[in-house]
Amino acid sequence: MKLWKKEFSLDKAIENFTVGNDREIDIHIAKYDVIASKAHAKMLASVGIISSEEATALINVLDKLLVQIENNEFTIEQDFEDVHSKIEFELTKELGETGKKIHTARSRNDQVLVALQLYYKSELTIIIEQVKTLFNTLISLANRYKDTLLPGYTHLQVAMPSSFGLWFSAYAETLLDDIELLTSSLKIVDQNPLGSAAGYGSSFPIDRDITTKELDFATLKYNVIAAQMARGKNERIIASSLGNLANTLSKFSMDICLYMSQNFGFITFPDELTTGSSIMPHKKNPDVFELVRGKCNQLQVLQTEMLLISNNLPSGYHRDFQLLKENMINGFENMKTILDIFNYSIQQVIVKEIDIHDDKYKYLFTVDNINNLVTNGIPFREAYIKISAEVEKGTYVPDLSKKHTHIGSIHNLSLDKIKEKLAAKF
Amino acid sequence: MKLWKKEFSLDKAIENFTVGNDREIDIHIAKYDVIASKAHAKMLASVGIISSEEATALINVLDKLLVQIENNEFTIEQDFEDVHSKIEFELTKELGETGKKIHTARSRNDQVLVALQLYYKSELTIIIEQVKTLFNTLISLANRYKDTLLPGYTHLQVAMPSSFGLWFSAYAETLLDDIELLTSSLKIVDQNPLGSAAGYGSSFPIDRDITTKELDFATLKYNVIAAQMARGKNERIIASSLGNLANTLSKFSMDICLYMSQNFGFITFPDELTTGSSIMPHKKNPDVFELVRGKCNQLQVLQTEMLLISNNLPSGYHRDFQLLKENMINGFENMKTILDIFNYSIQQVIVKEIDIHDDKYKYLFTVDNINNLVTNGIPFREAYIKISAEVEKGTYVPDLSKKHTHIGSIHNLSLDKIKEKLAAKF
Amino acid sequence: MKLWKKEFSLDKAIENFTVGNDREIDIHIAKYDVIASKAHAKMLASVGIISSEEATALINVLDKLLVQIENNEFTIEQDFEDVHSKIEFELTKELGETGKKIHTARSRNDQVLVALQLYYKSELTIIIEQVKTLFNTLISLANRYKDTLLPGYTHLQVAMPSSFGLWFSAYAETLLDDIELLTSSLKIVDQNPLGSAAGYGSSFPIDRDITTKELDFATLKYNVIAAQMARGKNERIIASSLGNLANTLSKFSMDICLYMSQNFGFITFPDELTTGSSIMPHKKNPDVFELVRGKCNQLQVLQTEMLLISNNLPSGYHRDFQLLKENMINGFENMKTILDIFNYSIQQVIVKEIDIHDDKYKYLFTVDNINNLVTNGIPFREAYIKISAEVEKGTYVPDLSKKHTHIGSIHNLSLDKIKEKLAAKF
Amino acid sequence: MKLWKKEFSLDKAIENFTVGNDREIDIHIAKYDVIASKAHAKMLASVGIISSEEATALINVLDKLLVQIENNEFTIEQDFEDVHSKIEFELTKELGETGKKIHTARSRNDQVLVALQLYYKSELTIIIEQVKTLFNTLISLANRYKDTLLPGYTHLQVAMPSSFGLWFSAYAETLLDDIELLTSSLKIVDQNPLGSAAGYGSSFPIDRDITTKELDFATLKYNVIAAQMARGKNERIIASSLGNLANTLSKFSMDICLYMSQNFGFITFPDELTTGSSIMPHKKNPDVFELVRGKCNQLQVLQTEMLLISNNLPSGYHRDFQLLKENMINGFENMKTILDIFNYSIQQVIVKEIDIHDDKYKYLFTVDNINNLVTNGIPFREAYIKISAEVEKGTYVPDLSKKHTHIGSIHNLSLDKIKEKLAAKF
Repeated sequence: MKLWKKEFSLDKAIENFTVGNDREIDIHIAKYDVIASKAHAKMLASVGIISSEEATALINVLDKLLVQIENNEFTIEQDFEDVHSKIEFELTKELGETGKKIHTARSRNDQVLVALQLYYKSELTIIIEQVKTLFNTLISLANRYKDTLLPGYTHLQVAMPSSFGLWFSAYAETLLDDIELLTSSLKIVDQNPLGSAAGYGSSFPIDRDITTKELDFATLKYNVIAAQMARGKNERIIASSLGNLANTLSKFSMDICLYMSQNFGFITFPDELTTGSSIMPHKKNPDVFELVRGKCNQLQVLQTEMLLISNNLPSGYHRDFQLLKENMINGFENMKTILDIFNYSIQQVIVKEIDIHDDKYKYLFTVDNINNLVTNGIPFREAYIKISAEVEKGTYVPDLSKKHTHIGSIHNLSLDKIKEKLAAKF
Repeated sequence: MKLWKKEFSLDKAIENFTVGNDREIDIHIAKYDVIASKAHAKMLASVGIISSEEATALINVLDKLLVQIENNEFTIEQDFEDVHSKIEFELTKELGETGKKIHTARSRNDQVLVALQLYYKSELTIIIEQVKTLFNTLISLANRYKDTLLPGYTHLQVAMPSSFGLWFSAYAETLLDDIELLTSSLKIVDQNPLGSAAGYGSSFPIDRDITTKELDFATLKYNVIAAQMARGKNERIIASSLGNLANTLSKFSMDICLYMSQNFGFITFPDELTTGSSIMPHKKNPDVFELVRGKCNQLQVLQTEMLLISNNLPSGYHRDFQLLKENMINGFENMKTILDIFNYSIQQVIVKEIDIHDDKYKYLFTVDNINNLVTNGIPFREAYIKISAEVEKGTYVPDLSKKHTHIGSIHNLSLDKIKEKLAAKF
Repeated sequence: MKLWKKEFSLDKAIENFTVGNDREIDIHIAKYDVIASKAHAKMLASVGIISSEEATALINVLDKLLVQIENNEFTIEQDFEDVHSKIEFELTKELGETGKKIHTARSRNDQVLVALQLYYKSELTIIIEQVKTLFNTLISLANRYKDTLLPGYTHLQVAMPSSFGLWFSAYAETLLDDIELLTSSLKIVDQNPLGSAAGYGSSFPIDRDITTKELDFATLKYNVIAAQMARGKNERIIASSLGNLANTLSKFSMDICLYMSQNFGFITFPDELTTGSSIMPHKKNPDVFELVRGKCNQLQVLQTEMLLISNNLPSGYHRDFQLLKENMINGFENMKTILDIFNYSIQQVIVKEIDIHDDKYKYLFTVDNINNLVTNGIPFREAYIKISAEVEKGTYVPDLSKKHTHIGSIHNLSLDKIKEKLAAKF
Repeated sequence: MKLWKKEFSLDKAIENFTVGNDREIDIHIAKYDVIASKAHAKMLASVGIISSEEATALINVLDKLLVQIENNEFTIEQDFEDVHSKIEFELTKELGETGKKIHTARSRNDQVLVALQLYYKSELTIIIEQVKTLFNTLISLANRYKDTLLPGYTHLQVAMPSSFGLWFSAYAETLLDDIELLTSSLKIVDQNPLGSAAGYGSSFPIDRDITTKELDFATLKYNVIAAQMARGKNERIIASSLGNLANTLSKFSMDICLYMSQNFGFITFPDELTTGSSIMPHKKNPDVFELVRGKCNQLQVLQTEMLLISNNLPSGYHRDFQLLKENMINGFENMKTILDIFNYSIQQVIVKEIDIHDDKYKYLFTVDNINNLVTNGIPFREAYIKISAEVEKGTYVPDLSKKHTHIGSIHNLSLDKIKEKLAAKF
């Protein structure tokens, strides 16, 4: 049953090609199509396009479908090309002519657009919550290890003293920027597109304010072309904000994999989080974090995919847009899993004792030695030359006693200030 | 004169390779390095690292440099590897030992980071203003052409009636989403990184709240690793928000180029905005808009460049980051020009008369005909089949009288509502 | 059953995360793992690491598995983390200790690498064949429509006369460049990596020439680090060559969608290849070609994905590489389908009559008019000015009689020469 | 002087916008425009469109320009929009009417296309030579250090014994794959496009075989649309092959930066190749290799830029294509410098002594221990469990005596075989 079927039938291969995986993918947005249909029915009755009895009947059947969906009992059979035709079929099966009226004053593009935006809103909200959880985990870890020194590197060379507290909370504070952009993309999809129909609006006297309120959208995307044109652009924006978050986790995982190398030996993880080798019995590989890194790198490509599908197409709907949803949904599913796994795994971190007196770390403290001289009145450039000469001659003795006291430094992590920044966002 | 020079000299080719174009590029950030140095000097005096006389002396010289920069009299000679060594040289030339003290409690990474963030803030603010100007231009055009019909296409097929008013204001409303993300990226760089030194803070008792206030940053990036780690990430985020805006203008230009084709013939431009051909005397090519499209497509790659340079590098500074700034600065320069050119050029648009009675456009109105039937009580699916049959038989007669009255539709553009949305952002 | 399992068990969620979809994906490479295992067994016997009886026993079981795979009776149950552990399990179930010996002198990385390269070789060969088929289809179409004029556009403006013959054969000749790069990437994966073990070779006296010959590789990747380092690089290279081909088909589809627009009206397709609209009964949308375009644009991102997963990782295996195979396999599956669908669909093209005398097309011939003047001795620039003036004044009369005779022009398509180029490649 | 100028003048800003940096960029292709013009003149005379005296006169002036270009005395003044108008101006200044005849039977697109392809051929040839030089350098280094052990890592964990010889020659052999693709892209641009005019050929009876021979192209791009359509596609293909090479050098540089870290300490470089820090006197940073890595990562984005500019544009020239050349030329310039710098710098490598008896490296040899047991008749899986138990209990004693003898392994680098592979390519 295809809505657009007229008199002819399509070759099977062509049909498979055009329908694609829509049936499996659409399970994720079924709930939102039903919710949007309910709002549409209510609105149609409100402006007199259908009777209030018809609206009630439609809403009742839709509510039953909603229960099915929430119980994972809803399926889209091979007879249907997508979730939208399946739901209309159910309405018509139950209600006859009344069922068909649900499609009055809207088009399938309309339905897909509003269902996707509701889905995106919901998923972004979940992800923002997960990021907050991870933020709190990292603040806790920073607090727990605030006194544990860690060599700091620049150019991968031993540079200056750092600490585990500083390292964990650096990623916490960075996550706040990711939240900023996730929130921004959430705002962008929080504009009701319903009523754009095929992208040029409807000649029915629909009331878009009603559906906006019913669907709990913050505002409308007023212009119907703008609403339609958001296909592709919404996806690119969300993908970019997911990519930012992925970027943070990917970098974090790179640090972790490096710090687990025997040549660094700063941290390790319990056996459950590492894997062995089929030929080397001594191996404890950081596979979980390598896979976080790899999957996050894949996620960072998502925006380019969304871009390439839609770029240089003139305004108006194109069938290419159907391809946007599959990898967006995969992207959300992956990100949710990654955040769960990461948040669980990072808590299992085992911080190892680092011998900060090891010869290779002694130059961590040259800047502190220089600063001592400066504090005693020697200009920085001169102090620099003096310590430099000691380093060259091998007479340099590190000063490990120096405290870094300014805000955001190793002995003053300012975790409360960072927590306030998060609080200020909500 | 290289700050890090010790006893040896680098091979010339290597030096060119490592210094790159920094001298030319850095002209764009010279102003911000001076401003940040002034704030740093004031702070150093405030916490007693230097005397207030020294601070005053430093600030006086820095102010003179600022005047030079603003008069375009400031140059970075071949002797200097970048703007930072040039400025320190000037301070030392004027003030001797006092000049050298400017580098106390900061590092070059610090300087680059804070100067770039100040530059980004300034440029983003300019661009947001330019987008507002373009928004207003488009709203005016929408208002002027609100009654002029335009065929609406889906799948590049004649679909439903649209209008020039709807088309112009669609891009206006879409720009609001671009502003949302530009504002978000502005917020992200509006966090003071100064004091992060080489990425692990300083053992001097600096007061970062003072520089935050002096430099008019909204807040601090507290954690010094987080501050340093923003290199690359800031760039990627900004590039992505510029890319969004570019995406809107690129699509708009695609529409324009298509609508100027003789096969559409919806619009044209005065001769000053079109170019001819070296062999075809009849040509009036939309080169300006093709170049907007092309340059915007280049701008959309910027984020991938920023990503690839920094991706999979562990935390801590890497010299690779030096490469981030050149194309960011080029990107800003290009975007400012594009916005100027586009805003000027779109106002010159000549809307041509479209013969809406032309045979190829008559099917624009099939949905309106169906809706008439539905309003008379026929279910949508049946009305669809009836009009469909008329189309097949060639008996279909379009109904051009139908008004689209709902919010955001061709006869109710809701321009005031869209303008309110912009106002609500500031 | 995990090969690397020692004494502890992994948390289920972690296991799902690390195993991913390997079971489903690996079905595609099962055949190649078996083939490579056969070659490995034969080699082990040949150098005396196992007995020839053991080799025969192993090969017999492997041959049975091969039959299962070819009959689609082979499955990888939930107990196994991938195809490699499943196959080793089968060997051990049948042969006991002898079964376990298959893993002597190789590692899982080794197995994955060689199986993937055999798979890539096979798929690339299929795709090259499909491209040849499409090439021949296009040459036939070019021949059939060699006399049918088509307006030629530059800047989307009517420019000079073209023809359907020229258009079809342009894409045919362009496919030859795609074949060049597909062949090149085929060559690159046609180097035996087996024997690289975990990336540093084996201390067993294996004979890699034997497996090279058995597996019909053109040569060896001698250096074992180089063999291992090809993970990621092979994928990026192949993805790029698939992307090139996708680029050709995407552009072709863009042309098709544009030419099907009522505003061009140059071609159409039978109803089976177009789809309708849920609200507009007159629509005949080119969905097949829009989806080819969209899917080809997705395929063009594949190389960036492969790049991002592997970029900036130091040499040596990383678990991130496991993520490379899924979308490569999806990419091959998609490309094979696209080529089938495209080759079938393009043959159904209906070339419509174009009224070349239509006013909007008359300037197609200005260059021919100029050339007439030039042939009569007037310098080109003067002739250009003369015809230009006629166009401005509206007195211009097109000359439709001119023949373009040079090689590769509309009246001399040189299809035989183009076919020779293909022949010369094989 | 703009060739397409008719009666009106363009606003200055618009002109700057459309002309862009063409004057500076075009210096790189000036030589090739002159060479192609000479071939065109010769051909025009050969088919009788101009007289042989005219051809001789044109060729003489062109030869003088060629000398100017080679002596770096050629400039493109502000009066000219590009190199092509400059050269035509010079011809006309010297020869009057005859000078103008050079533009007979070609268009500016034609000129740009052929000049770029000649430029690409020349640059690719240079780069392939540079890669060969680097290959030889690496083979020498591999030979010099063939007996120096190096820990081999997987997952960044100590894994199995490797060697400097294996490491250097791994990159040498990998470069052979890069040469394969560079050669392939060279072949693709080695097809004469001249004669395609504005993309639809010419009505003059030009002889494209003559220019093909004169310009030393291997063959023609016969179909004129195909020739024109290669704009964008040529660039993407070349950029991809440069990207492959960049990928190899980027990974190599990542290894180098890691191996220079104090935590690895495997190699270092003389002071001339490292840089210090403005605040840390002990620093010896690997800036050269970090910049190679960063610049190579930028180069890997080039193909995406080329793709985005041209993607989803229908066939026929678009002005967007003008934007393709600038970053291609920058890309070539950068790659040539990188190869020079890299080839020079890698020869300065100082291989440090690695204490292979250090505790953290002892597990490098577990596989060798296992293999000893296997050679003594114990099945691999059992031997694995035995050594695994020793590792767990801390009783494991490494066996450092094992030789890896198979082809391509640490004690049998097969450098001659790898050199033969290169030889076989030319």
